[in-house]
Amino acid sequence: MHQLITNLMLKKLNNPILKELSDSARLPYREKIAFTTDSFVVSPLAFPGGNIGKLAVCGTVNDLVVAGARPEYLSLALILEEGLDCRLLEKIVESIAVYCRRTGVSCVTGDIKVVEKGACDKMFINTTGIGRMVKTRPLSVKNIKAGDRIIITGEIGQHGMAVLSKREELGLRLNIKSDCRALDSLLLPLLKKIQGVRFMRDPTRGGLVSTLHEIIQATGLGIRIEEKQIPVSGQVKVACELLGIDPLYVANEGCAVVVVAGKSAKKALRLLKKHPLGRKARLAGEVISKPQGRLILETRLGTQRLLEMLTSEPLPRIC
Amino acid sequence: MHQLITNLMLKKLNNPILKELSDSARLPYREKIAFTTDSFVVSPLAFPGGNIGKLAVCGTVNDLVVAGARPEYLSLALILEEGLDCRLLEKIVESIAVYCRRTGVSCVTGDIKVVEKGACDKMFINTTGIGRMVKTRPLSVKNIKAGDRIIITGEIGQHGMAVLSKREELGLRLNIKSDCRALDSLLLPLLKKIQGVRFMRDPTRGGLVSTLHEIIQATGLGIRIEEKQIPVSGQVKVACELLGIDPLYVANEGCAVVVVAGKSAKKALRLLKKHPLGRKARLAGEVISKPQGRLILETRLGTQRLLEMLTSEPLPRIC
Repeated sequence: MHQLITNLMLKKLNNPILKELSDSARLPYREKIAFTTDSFVVSPLAFPGGNIGKLAVCGTVNDLVVAGARPEYLSLALILEEGLDCRLLEKIVESIAVYCRRTGVSCVTGDIKVVEKGACDKMFINTTGIGRMVKTRPLSVKNIKAGDRIIITGEIGQHGMAVLSKREELGLRLNIKSDCRALDSLLLPLLKKIQGVRFMRDPTRGGLVSTLHEIIQATGLGIRIEEKQIPVSGQVKVACELLGIDPLYVANEGCAVVVVAGKSAKKALRLLKKHPLGRKARLAGEVISKPQGRLILETRLGTQRLLEMLTSEPLPRIC
Repeated sequence: MHQLITNLMLKKLNNPILKELSDSARLPYREKIAFTTDSFVVSPLAFPGGNIGKLAVCGTVNDLVVAGARPEYLSLALILEEGLDCRLLEKIVESIAVYCRRTGVSCVTGDIKVVEKGACDKMFINTTGIGRMVKTRPLSVKNIKAGDRIIITGEIGQHGMAVLSKREELGLRLNIKSDCRALDSLLLPLLKKIQGVRFMRDPTRGGLVSTLHEIIQATGLGIRIEEKQIPVSGQVKVACELLGIDPLYVANEGCAVVVVAGKSAKKALRLLKKHPLGRKARLAGEVISKPQGRLILETRLGTQRLLEMLTSEPLPRIC
């Protein structure tokens, strides 16, 4: 994926905005506008804690929010397989409507394509979002400095394990709910009230480790995280052990990595913890100048472990 | 499709911008912004005159242009089937890059999802576009009055028949090229120079008749078109007769229906005909106050025929 993006996409479609590889593009209109797109191909379409419709709205809202924008408008494009259960479609559109309302987003334009049976697996959704930047100084990975602290706003691994538990072929009975939710009400006040928020990202595909490695690659710095400070629920821990999966690499859809200046870190954490979606937030790591390019996990045992970037997708169609 | 949109989408996602059902949503930022989305599921991926990449860029550009906006930014979301030929992907991305450059559009954000073999048919593309409105008074179907004239800017039916000719199961050898192309250079100058352009739309799925019926439904007026004034190439005519298809219902990707005030119609036609993409333009019809709600074709024989709206999709996966 990384090679596809850098060797093909960036090379052919090269322009200064795309090059940023931000969650949202920043467009230089008079109101600074953020612009982001995502296709959703999750399987199954419904899972504990959500469905593809809720996932699409919340995912796009979150991509705008972590870029520092207040979500305003959404486009919605559906690709439907002929013969799709109409009640399921209705339920999914209902979820889209509910989460648009809750986040104050208007779905203003759309497209529907129907393909013949077998040409797509039930239903894919694309949502593209537009929002207005809430800060004049944009959040950017380029703002990050050694000494900055890393906050994780919620328990990790919930989404990936919830979807996995519903895959028919696995026949698992885990009682895990996806964290799928919109983070606008958690993160936008943080931007208003806390100076020194450098960068935010929601660790979706590839999980926490992939997000931290993106920061490392973009800054050339290193990151140290503490295992005992990383919020993971007991259920996710057990399920991951059972399946031989590391929760640090599992997709999330309702928590964020927030990089904040050292001196603002505790204040930011306090603010996040006051919000229902931030109660499990933790100061879990630090940006370090040396060793460069490394992601170091300080384990519960007091040892250090290098966390490598994923080379292959462990859980396909998780979002 | 019509029922799906009005009974499900409009009902659940109801808001004033969506209700317009325009090719592009108009967003009330300080620079008036147009916003449009389309998924492309055309099969096969390449056809005479284009491929899915060119189609996606030109289709989205055209949706902005017919809304009266200058296309500026594009998002690009790919859904790829595992095992897709990399050279084909590269060729398609190259086309995307070429047509972005030619239309002055920057592809600023994107997403790639890979699904397992069998979960999608090779490749789907979503492009969502943003542009800046070039006129303060927006084009709208609501501006249309009885007495307005209807211009068709190019030969119809080319795209649908070109794609159809490449369908393996048909084994046809037609020498028809899709009209797939961007209409920015043809239509934006028209908006600048001609007062009295009321409304424009590119007659894609469902062809010319569907676009005219949309106008009829939205205005409550009627439309009369003259068969001998509708530009159709000899090749498309022959192929359509052979297959028992009416070219008036076949998808286009490089011509537009322009509704213009009666007194500006000839001037608009002259201007269009000066442009290489408008040489085949014709004044083909008129908006009439009676009979209401009817689309009347005056045939070559001097008789009249009522053209009904399509009730089913005749050519699936045409775009």
